[in-house]
Amino acid sequence: MAAPKVGIIMGSKSDLPVMQQAADILDDLGVSFELTIVSAHRTPHRMVEYAEGARSKGLQVIIAGAGGAAHLPGMVASLTTLPVIGVPVKSSNSIDGWDSILSILQMPGGIPVATVALDGAKNAGILAAEIVGATDNSIADNLQQYKDGLRDKVMESVKSLEK
Amino acid sequence: MAAPKVGIIMGSKSDLPVMQQAADILDDLGVSFELTIVSAHRTPHRMVEYAEGARSKGLQVIIAGAGGAAHLPGMVASLTTLPVIGVPVKSSNSIDGWDSILSILQMPGGIPVATVALDGAKNAGILAAEIVGATDNSIADNLQQYKDGLRDKVMESVKSLEK
Amino acid sequence: MAAPKVGIIMGSKSDLPVMQQAADILDDLGVSFELTIVSAHRTPHRMVEYAEGARSKGLQVIIAGAGGAAHLPGMVASLTTLPVIGVPVKSSNSIDGWDSILSILQMPGGIPVATVALDGAKNAGILAAEIVGATDNSIADNLQQYKDGLRDKVMESVKSLEK
Amino acid sequence: MAAPKVGIIMGSKSDLPVMQQAADILDDLGVSFELTIVSAHRTPHRMVEYAEGARSKGLQVIIAGAGGAAHLPGMVASLTTLPVIGVPVKSSNSIDGWDSILSILQMPGGIPVATVALDGAKNAGILAAEIVGATDNSIADNLQQYKDGLRDKVMESVKSLEK
Amino acid sequence: MAAPKVGIIMGSKSDLPVMQQAADILDDLGVSFELTIVSAHRTPHRMVEYAEGARSKGLQVIIAGAGGAAHLPGMVASLTTLPVIGVPVKSSNSIDGWDSILSILQMPGGIPVATVALDGAKNAGILAAEIVGATDNSIADNLQQYKDGLRDKVMESVKSLEK
Amino acid sequence: MAAPKVGIIMGSKSDLPVMQQAADILDDLGVSFELTIVSAHRTPHRMVEYAEGARSKGLQVIIAGAGGAAHLPGMVASLTTLPVIGVPVKSSNSIDGWDSILSILQMPGGIPVATVALDGAKNAGILAAEIVGATDNSIADNLQQYKDGLRDKVMESVKSLEK
Amino acid sequence: MAAPKVGIIMGSKSDLPVMQQAADILDDLGVSFELTIVSAHRTPHRMVEYAEGARSKGLQVIIAGAGGAAHLPGMVASLTTLPVIGVPVKSSNSIDGWDSILSILQMPGGIPVATVALDGAKNAGILAAEIVGATDNSIADNLQQYKDGLRDKVMESVKSLEK
Amino acid sequence: MAAPKVGIIMGSKSDLPVMQQAADILDDLGVSFELTIVSAHRTPHRMVEYAEGARSKGLQVIIAGAGGAAHLPGMVASLTTLPVIGVPVKSSNSIDGWDSILSILQMPGGIPVATVALDGAKNAGILAAEIVGATDNSIADNLQQYKDGLRDKVMESVKSLEK
Repeated sequence: MAAPKVGIIMGSKSDLPVMQQAADILDDLGVSFELTIVSAHRTPHRMVEYAEGARSKGLQVIIAGAGGAAHLPGMVASLTTLPVIGVPVKSSNSIDGWDSILSILQMPGGIPVATVALDGAKNAGILAAEIVGATDNSIADNLQQYKDGLRDKVMESVKSLEK
Repeated sequence: MAAPKVGIIMGSKSDLPVMQQAADILDDLGVSFELTIVSAHRTPHRMVEYAEGARSKGLQVIIAGAGGAAHLPGMVASLTTLPVIGVPVKSSNSIDGWDSILSILQMPGGIPVATVALDGAKNAGILAAEIVGATDNSIADNLQQYKDGLRDKVMESVKSLEK
Repeated sequence: MAAPKVGIIMGSKSDLPVMQQAADILDDLGVSFELTIVSAHRTPHRMVEYAEGARSKGLQVIIAGAGGAAHLPGMVASLTTLPVIGVPVKSSNSIDGWDSILSILQMPGGIPVATVALDGAKNAGILAAEIVGATDNSIADNLQQYKDGLRDKVMESVKSLEK
Repeated sequence: MAAPKVGIIMGSKSDLPVMQQAADILDDLGVSFELTIVSAHRTPHRMVEYAEGARSKGLQVIIAGAGGAAHLPGMVASLTTLPVIGVPVKSSNSIDGWDSILSILQMPGGIPVATVALDGAKNAGILAAEIVGATDNSIADNLQQYKDGLRDKVMESVKSLEK
Repeated sequence: MAAPKVGIIMGSKSDLPVMQQAADILDDLGVSFELTIVSAHRTPHRMVEYAEGARSKGLQVIIAGAGGAAHLPGMVASLTTLPVIGVPVKSSNSIDGWDSILSILQMPGGIPVATVALDGAKNAGILAAEIVGATDNSIADNLQQYKDGLRDKVMESVKSLEK
Repeated sequence: MAAPKVGIIMGSKSDLPVMQQAADILDDLGVSFELTIVSAHRTPHRMVEYAEGARSKGLQVIIAGAGGAAHLPGMVASLTTLPVIGVPVKSSNSIDGWDSILSILQMPGGIPVATVALDGAKNAGILAAEIVGATDNSIADNLQQYKDGLRDKVMESVKSLEK
Repeated sequence: MAAPKVGIIMGSKSDLPVMQQAADILDDLGVSFELTIVSAHRTPHRMVEYAEGARSKGLQVIIAGAGGAAHLPGMVASLTTLPVIGVPVKSSNSIDGWDSILSILQMPGGIPVATVALDGAKNAGILAAEIVGATDNSIADNLQQYKDGLRDKVMESVKSLEK
Repeated sequence: MAAPKVGIIMGSKSDLPVMQQAADILDDLGVSFELTIVSAHRTPHRMVEYAEGARSKGLQVIIAGAGGAAHLPGMVASLTTLPVIGVPVKSSNSIDGWDSILSILQMPGGIPVATVALDGAKNAGILAAEIVGATDNSIADNLQQYKDGLRDKVMESVKSLEK
C-alpha cells in the first residue's frame, strides 16, 4: 500500500462515525491516508509528536476533527507547516455546534486552519484530495469524475421527478 | 515573473483592504499570485469562466473573499477541482460577519470550501502557501522561517515585559 | 394546461417535502407552475440556463429553495430580472436554519431575493400568487377567498373553544 | 405624473434615511410610487385603512420598513392581497438588527412578507420594480439595463485594478 | 361567576396547550378570566375590537400569547391602555423561540409589552394576578400562600434528598 | 407629595442615564415614585429588605434595571408579591445586551418578571403606569392622552413629509 | 466521615441527574462533600444562610448549578468569600442553554463565578478538587492519577482502532 | 518579595490592557503573582513547559487570557493539575467575544477551565485570591474587606442620589 498522504486524526473515538466519512471519500478518490486518535487535552504530548513528525513521514495534509472547545486542529496547525483541515464535530457536549465551529475557525493571524462545515468530514476528505490533486493529475482526474457524478445524480433526480 | 500559482479574487473593490493582506503575505512567502475582482452576483459569467479556466492556466489554489450572502467562494468551488479558500469579509452590509461566515462555511457535501476566520485574508494567504508548500520544499522552508519569526516576536515581547 | 407562470426549483430532491407545499398552494390558488431540481453547486450550468431562459418562456416569478450555504436563490436572482422568492430550507446539514436564512436574505445591493420564513414554502407559493395577482384580477379574487377562509377557520376555533 | 404603483411606508420618520433608497431606485427604474409614514403601534387605524385601500387605489406592491419588534410589514400583509415587501431596519432600539429581521421574516403560514436584507431598502425598490416588471416590458427593460450597469461597473474596477 | 379581570388570548388554537397554563394558575389564585382566540394576522379586525373594548368591559390585564413573528401582544398593546403581558410561544414555525421572544420583547418606546419567558404562560398568569393583587388584598394573600407553597416544596425535596 | 406607588431601583449608578427615563415618564403621567440604588451582588441584604418591605410601605409596582448577569429583577421578584418590571440594561460589561435580556426574561415557573426591551426604561415607566391605571381612572386618562399624543406626532410627520 | 470540603447545591431537584456527576467524581478523587437543594428564587433566605455559613462550617469551595435565568451561583458568590463554581444546566425551561450560561458567566466586576461548560457538573467536581488540591498534596496526587487515566484510555482506543 | 502563588499568562502583548487588571487586584488583595506572555499557537513548547512546571515552582493557580479561537486556557489545563482560570478576551479578531467565550468555556469532561466573564480579568484575579484564600485566612480577610468596600461604595451612591 502507498505511504499515506493524508493524516486523519480526531479527539475522541466518539468522533469516529463522523470522521470515517473523510476516510471513505479519500478511498473513493484514490488518496492514501492514515487514521488515528490524538487528543489535544488528554494526550497533549502525543499531539505535539504527531504534528511535528507529520511532514517528515510524508504527509501532505492533516485532517483534524473535534467538538466543543475544539483545540486539536488549531494546536496541530501551530506545530506544522502542512495545511491543516479542521472538522467541527457536533459532539454531545457541543452547543448546537457553535462552540466547535468558532474554536476551530477563528484562529489568530499566522496560524490558519482550513475549516469545513459542521460535521463536514466528507468535504474535509474532498478538500484534502483537492490539495493533493493541485499537483497530482491523476487525483485531479478522479476529482473531476466525482464532480461529474454529482451532476449526473442531480440529472437523474430531475428525470425521475418529471416522469 | 513566475506564472501565478494562487488566484486571489473578491466580490467587490470594497473588499480590497482586507484581501490585499493575502497578497502581501504571499509576497513575503515567495508564492506567485494574481489578484482581480470577480462578482458572483454582478458578473456571474465572468465567475464561471474564471473558475473553469483556473486549473488550465496553472493556478494551484484560489482564494475568494466576499461578504454578506457570500456566494463567490462556494460557486467557484462548484466549478473547479482546485482547492478554494474562502475569506468571510465583514462588509458594510454584513450582520456582524455571521452571514459571511455561514454562507461560506456551510457548503453541502461534495463541494468543500476551506474557510478561514472573519476578515482572515492573511491566514488565507498562509494557507495557500501551505498548500503549495505541501509539495514544494522551498516554500515549506519559507513557511518554517515565518513560523520561527512568530515565535521570536513573542519571545521579544516576553523580554520587554520582564524588564 | 396553461403555460406555467411560476417556476419552482430546489437544490436537491431532499428539499421536495418542503417545496411541494409551494406547488400545492399554487394549485389551490389557480396559478400554473412548473417544478424541477436545479443545483447551484452540482449543476451550475443548468442553473445559468434555467435562470436566463425563465422570462422568455413565460415565467413571471421563480421560487427557489435551498438549505445550508444556500446559493441557489441569490445566484438565480443574479441571472434574471424576474422576481425571485427564496425559501430557506432547514436541511439536515443546516445549523438550526440560520445558515439557510442568512445566505438567502443578506443579498448585496442590486440583487434582491424575496425571502420567506424558514421552511416557508407555502408562503412562497402565496407570495408568488400575490405577484401574479398584482395585475390579474381572477388570481386576486382567489387570494381574497383564501384570506377569508383563514379568518373563517379562526372563528370556528373560537366557537369550538367557547362551547 | 403617473398614478403610483408602489406604496412605500415606514414606521417612523427616523427610518427615512434608509427607506429613501427605495424611492430613489424606483425613480431610476421609472416606477411610480408614493411614500408616507404609517405606524403599526402609534397609528393602528391609519395602518388598517392604508392596507385595505391599497389595491383599489391602484398600488401593485407595498414596501414597508420598520425596526425592533417590527410589526408593520406583517400587519399590512394581513390586510391586503397585494405583495408586501418588508425592510428590516437596524433602528436605534434594535439588537444588531436580529429583532427587526425575525419579526418581519418569520410570518406564519398564510400571510407572507417578502423580506429583504437588513437596511436593504434599495433592494426592496428593485424587487418592487421586478414585480411590476413581471408583466410590464418597459420596466423589465429598465431592470436589464440596470443589471448591465452593475456588470459594467465591476469591469471598470477590474480594469483600474489591473493597471 | 365574577366578571373576568384578565383576558387571555392567543393567535392560534395550537397555542392552547401552552396558554392553558395561564388559565389554570389564575384559577388557583382566585382571579377571574376569559380565554379566546384572536389572530393578529388572520382576524385583524377582531383584534382591534377586542383590544379597544377590553377596558370598558372590566378587564384589568390582557395576556396575549403568540409564536414566530408574534405581533399579537404588541398590536393589542397599541390599542389599549391596559397592561399587556406577552407570552412568546415556541410554536412549530419558530426558530428555537428567538423570533417569538424578540418580536414581543423589543417594542418601541411608548408601547410596552410585559414579556415573560419562552412558553412562560404560567408566569404570565401569576404576573396578571400580581397586577390585580397590587390593589386587591385577597389576591395578594393568595399570592403569598402560593409563594409559601413553592418554598415548602423545596424544603420537602431537601428532606427527601437528605434521607 | 404623594406616597410613592412605584419603586425604581437599579444595580449601579452607571445605570442611571437609562433608568432616569422611567422616572421622567412617570412624572409626565402623574404617577408618584421613588428611585434608589440596590445592588443584588454588592448589597444583597439591602435588596432583601427593600423587596420584603415594598408592599407594606405602599408600593404597587417595582421597576428594577440591571445589566450583564442581571439578577436584581428576578431576586426582587422572589421576595415580594408585587409585580416586578425588569429593564435589561446594555451595560459596559454586557455582550450586546443578550446576557442582560436572558438573565431577566427567562425566570423559572412561579417567579415572573415583566421584562421590557433592552434599555427600555421608558416603557417600564409606562407599563408601571398602566398597572397603576388598571384600577385608577385618572392615571388611565393620562395614559390615553399620552397615546393620543403619540398618534398626533406621527400625523405631524406625515404632513411635514407630504409638503 | 470527613467534614465536607465542597458544598454542592442546585436550584431544583430536577437538576440532580446533572449535578450528581459532580458528587461522583469528588468521591472518585477522595474529596469530601455535601449535597443539597437551595433555590435562589423559592428559598432566598435559605440561600443567604447557606452562603454566609459556608466558610465557618469548613467548606473550601461551593458548586452551584442552575438553569434558565440562573441566579443561584452569582447570588451565593455575592454572600461568601469562598470560590464559587457555577454549572449552567440545560434545564427544560432553558433556550438551548444560552440563558443558563450567560446569567452565570457574565457576573459584574467584584463578584466572580468560576463557570464551567453547559451541564459540565463533572468538570465542576474536578475543578473543586483542583482547588482543594492546590494546597493538599494527596488530592493533587489523585488528580494526577485521574489525568494519567484519561491518557491511558485514549491510548487504548488508539490500539483498538489500529488493530 | 514572596514567591508567586498565581501565574498570569496571556496569548499576546495586545491582551495586556485587559489582563493587567488581574495583576492590579491581586496586588490590592495581597496575593503574590508573576505575569508573562505564553502563546499557545506561536510558542507551543513554551506553553507545555510553563504548564508542566507551574506546580513544582509553587504556583497554586494559573490565570490564562486569550481571544478568538482561544486555546491557551484549555491547553494549559490539560498539562497541569492546578486550577486554571480562563479569561475570554474580546480581541480585535473576535466576533463580539462569542468565539473567545465558547472556546474557553466548553471544555470536554475531564479538563475543566474556570471561565469568567468576557474581559473579566479583574474577576479572574479575585477568583484566584478566593482559591488561595480557601486555606489562607489572611487572604480571606482581605477578600472580606474588599467585599465590604463594594457595599460601602453602593451606600455612598445611594446617599449622593438621595440628596
